[in-house]
Amino acid sequence: MSSLFKVNPWKIIEDSFQPDKMRIAESIMSAGNGAMGLRGNFEEDYSGDSHRGTYIGGIWYPDKTRVGWWKNGYPEYFGKVINATKLIGLHVYVNGVLLDAAKMPVKHYYREMDMFRGVLTRHMVYSLPFGDVKIVSERFVSMYSKQLLAIRYTVTPCFDAEVKIEAYLDGCVHNEDSNYDELFWEQIYSDTDDDVMLVINKTKENPFGTPRFTVASSASVDTNLDIVSKYSEEGFASYTYSKQISANESACLDKIVCVLTDRDMPEIELKQQSKITLKSFIDLGYERLLSEHEKAWQNKWNMADIQIEGDPSAQQGIRFNLFQLLSTYTGEDDRLNIGPKGYTGEKYGGATYWDTEAFCFPVYLAISGEKVAKNLLKYRHNQLPQAYENAKKLGLSGALYPMVTFNGIECHNEWEITFMELHRNGAIAHAIFNYTTYTSDFSFLKNEGLEVLLGIARFWASRVHWCENKKVYMIHGVTGPNEYENNVNNNWYTNRIAAWCLNFFCQALALAGEERRKELKIDHDEIKHFNDIVDNMYYPVDEELGIFVQHDTFLDKELNNV
Amino acid sequence: MSSLFKVNPWKIIEDSFQPDKMRIAESIMSAGNGAMGLRGNFEEDYSGDSHRGTYIGGIWYPDKTRVGWWKNGYPEYFGKVINATKLIGLHVYVNGVLLDAAKMPVKHYYREMDMFRGVLTRHMVYSLPFGDVKIVSERFVSMYSKQLLAIRYTVTPCFDAEVKIEAYLDGCVHNEDSNYDELFWEQIYSDTDDDVMLVINKTKENPFGTPRFTVASSASVDTNLDIVSKYSEEGFASYTYSKQISANESACLDKIVCVLTDRDMPEIELKQQSKITLKSFIDLGYERLLSEHEKAWQNKWNMADIQIEGDPSAQQGIRFNLFQLLSTYTGEDDRLNIGPKGYTGEKYGGATYWDTEAFCFPVYLAISGEKVAKNLLKYRHNQLPQAYENAKKLGLSGALYPMVTFNGIECHNEWEITFMELHRNGAIAHAIFNYTTYTSDFSFLKNEGLEVLLGIARFWASRVHWCENKKVYMIHGVTGPNEYENNVNNNWYTNRIAAWCLNFFCQALALAGEERRKELKIDHDEIKHFNDIVDNMYYPVDEELGIFVQHDTFLDKELNNV
Repeated sequence: MSSLFKVNPWKIIEDSFQPDKMRIAESIMSAGNGAMGLRGNFEEDYSGDSHRGTYIGGIWYPDKTRVGWWKNGYPEYFGKVINATKLIGLHVYVNGVLLDAAKMPVKHYYREMDMFRGVLTRHMVYSLPFGDVKIVSERFVSMYSKQLLAIRYTVTPCFDAEVKIEAYLDGCVHNEDSNYDELFWEQIYSDTDDDVMLVINKTKENPFGTPRFTVASSASVDTNLDIVSKYSEEGFASYTYSKQISANESACLDKIVCVLTDRDMPEIELKQQSKITLKSFIDLGYERLLSEHEKAWQNKWNMADIQIEGDPSAQQGIRFNLFQLLSTYTGEDDRLNIGPKGYTGEKYGGATYWDTEAFCFPVYLAISGEKVAKNLLKYRHNQLPQAYENAKKLGLSGALYPMVTFNGIECHNEWEITFMELHRNGAIAHAIFNYTTYTSDFSFLKNEGLEVLLGIARFWASRVHWCENKKVYMIHGVTGPNEYENNVNNNWYTNRIAAWCLNFFCQALALAGEERRKELKIDHDEIKHFNDIVDNMYYPVDEELGIFVQHDTFLDKELNNV
Repeated sequence: MSSLFKVNPWKIIEDSFQPDKMRIAESIMSAGNGAMGLRGNFEEDYSGDSHRGTYIGGIWYPDKTRVGWWKNGYPEYFGKVINATKLIGLHVYVNGVLLDAAKMPVKHYYREMDMFRGVLTRHMVYSLPFGDVKIVSERFVSMYSKQLLAIRYTVTPCFDAEVKIEAYLDGCVHNEDSNYDELFWEQIYSDTDDDVMLVINKTKENPFGTPRFTVASSASVDTNLDIVSKYSEEGFASYTYSKQISANESACLDKIVCVLTDRDMPEIELKQQSKITLKSFIDLGYERLLSEHEKAWQNKWNMADIQIEGDPSAQQGIRFNLFQLLSTYTGEDDRLNIGPKGYTGEKYGGATYWDTEAFCFPVYLAISGEKVAKNLLKYRHNQLPQAYENAKKLGLSGALYPMVTFNGIECHNEWEITFMELHRNGAIAHAIFNYTTYTSDFSFLKNEGLEVLLGIARFWASRVHWCENKKVYMIHGVTGPNEYENNVNNNWYTNRIAAWCLNFFCQALALAGEERRKELKIDHDEIKHFNDIVDNMYYPVDEELGIFVQHDTFLDKELNNV
C-alpha cells in the first residue's frame, strides 16, 4: 500500500489531505454490502478533482460500442453498472460560507476505513475567515440490511455561528466513461412528503432489448437543527436545516438512506415500499443500525479472517483484499456476480469476468461457504443458453462463456480477447470441479453442473482441429491467460484446459449414470470423440530441455540474459 | 461494375434515378485534377441520402484518435483530408418551388462521366405541379488549371415560369467521419464584392502541432437571368438571379469557381489573388476553359490509355481505374501523395499508404513518366526524419515508414497493423529499385535513394532477432501483406523483403562508391552484419511438399477440400 495510507492491522488510514491523490483515496476508501456500494467521497461539497460514485448491484445499462475500427462479430454494446443517485450529499454552510476543501485551507485531516466494523470515519478542520470549523463524519453501507446506508455528521465551529445544512438526493448523474456522453438515467419522480426525500429514476430505453431498471432512493434526517425548507425538482429532493449555535457547540445530523429497486419488487410498489422500509430503519435509530451492521461484519470476519503474524503491512493487505471481496459479493442474490473493481468506480463496468471462477471462486468457497459459492455456479448455469449463443456467433458449437457480461451475452470488444481468450471457458468448468471436491456435494455436478460441462465440452470439440501433419488435435489462434501474446497457436494452458474439460465432463457423465446420459441425449460416439481429443491433444514440449513450451515457436524467441 | 452503370468504352453511364444507390453513384461519378476533387453530387438541392464532398489535396486535419481500448504506442491523431467548401451549389426555384429530387417525381434521368474528356453531364426532368422542368448540367474539375472548376447549367420549364437560381459557396462543412463530431473549419472571411462571391476558411487550431491551412474559394456567374440580390454571412456567400421566361425557353448559367490555398502563396495574398485568378478564368470564358481541359485530358490519355479488345466491360474497367488514378495524382506537387480512394469521399482520409509504392508506383512510372514517379520517391525522402522517429517510438533503430500519414508520422491505430505490418517498409525500397531499373537513372539511387535505403536497412537489422535454437535470423510478431493473420512468426514475404532490402542497400552502396559510404558514416562491420542477416535469414519451407510456407506452423492448419 502506498505511503498515502498508514499501516494498521484493521484500518486503512489517511492522515494528510492530498488533493492530487483524491481519486485513489476515494477508491481505496470505498464501501459496499454486495447489493450496493459507494466511493469514499466527502458528504459535503468538494469542487476539486474527484469522482463521485454510487453503484447498485445489477443496475446496468448497455452502452453502445465505440471502437476505432469495427471488426465483424463485435458486440453491439458494452454493459456497465452505472453511476447512480448521489445518496450521501450534504451542502454545509457556516455563516453562509459553503464548506469546500478545494476553496479553503484544511488545517487537519484524518480519514479511516475500519475494516473490522465496515465503518468510514473522517475528521477535518476547515479554516474559515471567522475561525476553525471541525467536521466529523461517520458512515456505513449496511451489511445488516442491503437497502440501508447511514451517515452521522457533526459540524463544530470554534465561534458563534449560523450552521445551515441541506441534505439531498441527486439522481441527475452522468457516467464519466459513457461512450457517447449519453445520459443513462431518466428521472421518473421526486418528492419531499412525509419527512422523506424521495428520488425515483429509471435507466433509459435502449435499442438492444436489454431490460430497464428503476431505482427508488429515499432518505430521512434526524438533527438538532431547525428545519428551514424542503425542495424537490426533477431528479432531486432535499431538506434544509439551520440554527445559530454558540462557539464549540455541535450541529448534529443523522441521514438514513434507503435504496430499493424493481429487481426486488414491482416498479409500482417502489414509492410506498421506500417509505415503509425507510421508516423501519428510522424506528431502529442510527445507534442500533450501526451495531447490527457491526455484528454482521463480525460474523463475516469470524469465518473469513486470515492472520499474518510478523508482517503488519501484509496483514493489512490481506484484510483489505478480503474486505473488498466481502463488500463486493455476498452471495445472497444468484443474479449478481463479482465486478472486478467491486463498487469502487466505473473501470471494468462492474461486469462479470472469468476472474470470478479463475481467482475469486476458491476464496469465496473458503471464506463465505458452500451456499455462496453455489450461487456463483448457478449464475453461469442460468446463462447457459446465452453461452450457446456466443459460440454460435463465432460459428462454433457448444457453449462459450463470455469474457465480459451481465446477461450471459458477450459484450467485450477487443478481437484478441473476445474471440481468442478461450481459456475462460475452462475456468467455468474448473469452478464446478473445485466446488464438488471441496464440498463433497455431488448433486450440483450431476444436475446443473453436467449441463454446463456438456456445453463447454462441445465447444472445445468444435474449436479444436485435426492436424493431419502431426496426427494430433490442435487449437490455433488463441490468446493465452498471460494476455500478452495474441493469436498464438497451441497455447499450452489453453490446450490443456480444453482436454481437461473434455475429460472432466466424461468422468462426471459416468458418475451421473446412464439415465442422465439418455436424458441429455448424448450418444456414445460423441463421448468417444471427446476421449479421442483428450488422448490425442497436442502439447508443445521441448524434449531436449525437458520443458513445456508456452506455445508453438516460443523457444525460437531471442534469449535475453536476466 | 454493377448494373447501376451501363457498359461503354469511354463513359460511365447511369440512366435511372436510384435514390438508394445515390452514395455509390456519387463516388463513382467523382472527378479530380490531382489538386482537388469532388463527389458526383447534384448542383441543385437534394435532401435524400447523399454525401456531399469536396476535397483539396494537402488540406488535412489531425482528428484526435478515438479507439475502444487504448494501446501503448497509439498515435495521438488520425490525419484526414477534410471535406471542404461546397463549390457547386445552386438553389433552383421554378415558380417558387425548390427543385429537390427527394421531394418530387423524377421523370427522366441520365448522368454520364465522359472519362475521355473528364466531363460530367446530367440530364433530368423534374415533374412539378405546373408541368415538367428539364435541367442539364455539365461540369469539370479542370486538368488545365488546378485551381479551376466550372459548371454550365440550364433550366427549361415546359410552361411559362419564373426561374430563380441562388448560386452559392458554403464553407460550413462537417466531416461525416469526425471522431468527436468536431468541426474542422474556422470561418475567416466572406464577401460578395466585385461580382465575385468569396469564402475564406481555415482549418482549426489543433493540439498536435500540425500546420493549419487556409483555403479561399471564389466564384463568378454568367447568366441570361437578371441579378436579384447578393448575400454573405459567416462562411457563406451567394448571388441570386431570376427571370420570367416562356415555356421551353432556357435559363442558362455558368458558374466558374477558383480555389486557392496558402500551401501555394502567403495567406495574406489569398483574397486578392483569388479575384485575379478568377478574373483570368472568366476572361477566357467557359467554352475555352472546357476545350483547354479536354486537351489536357487528351494528352494524358495519349500516354496512359490501355486498350482491351473484345471485352467492353474490361475496357471500361481499366479506363475507369486509369481515370481515377490520373484524377487523384498528377505528380506536379511533391508534397502530395495518392489517397487510396482519391477524391471520392472520406474513407481512408486521403492519406498516404504503402499502397502508393506497392501498387500505384509502377503504374504511374508507366503512364505518367519518370518525373511524376520521382516525385513520389522524393515525398518519402522528405519524410525520412519522421520515419526514424516512427522506428524509435517502437524501440527500434533505423527508419520505419508509416502505415498511414500526411507528414511522415504514423497516424494509424490498430496495433495488428500499425505495429506489425512491417512489410510496408520494403515497398518503399522496392519503388526505388523499380524506378532505377525502369528509367536507368541511377542518380536518385546514389543520392536521396541511398539515404532512404540505409534507414530501411537499419530498421530491419534492428527488428530481426537471432534464433539460437536454429542458428538463423527470424522476424516474430508480424502481420503479413494478406492482412488476415496477425502476430505471426516468420511470414515468408516479410522475411524475404527484409533480406531483399538489406541486400539491395549493400548493392546500391557498392555502386555509389567508397566516398559515399564515408559520407554516410557506414562502417564495414555494419555492412558485414547486414550481409550476415541476408545469408542467414530463415524462410519457412516444407521440404517434403517442396513449397514455401506462409509462416511458421501454417501447415498445421486444418485442411479443407475445396
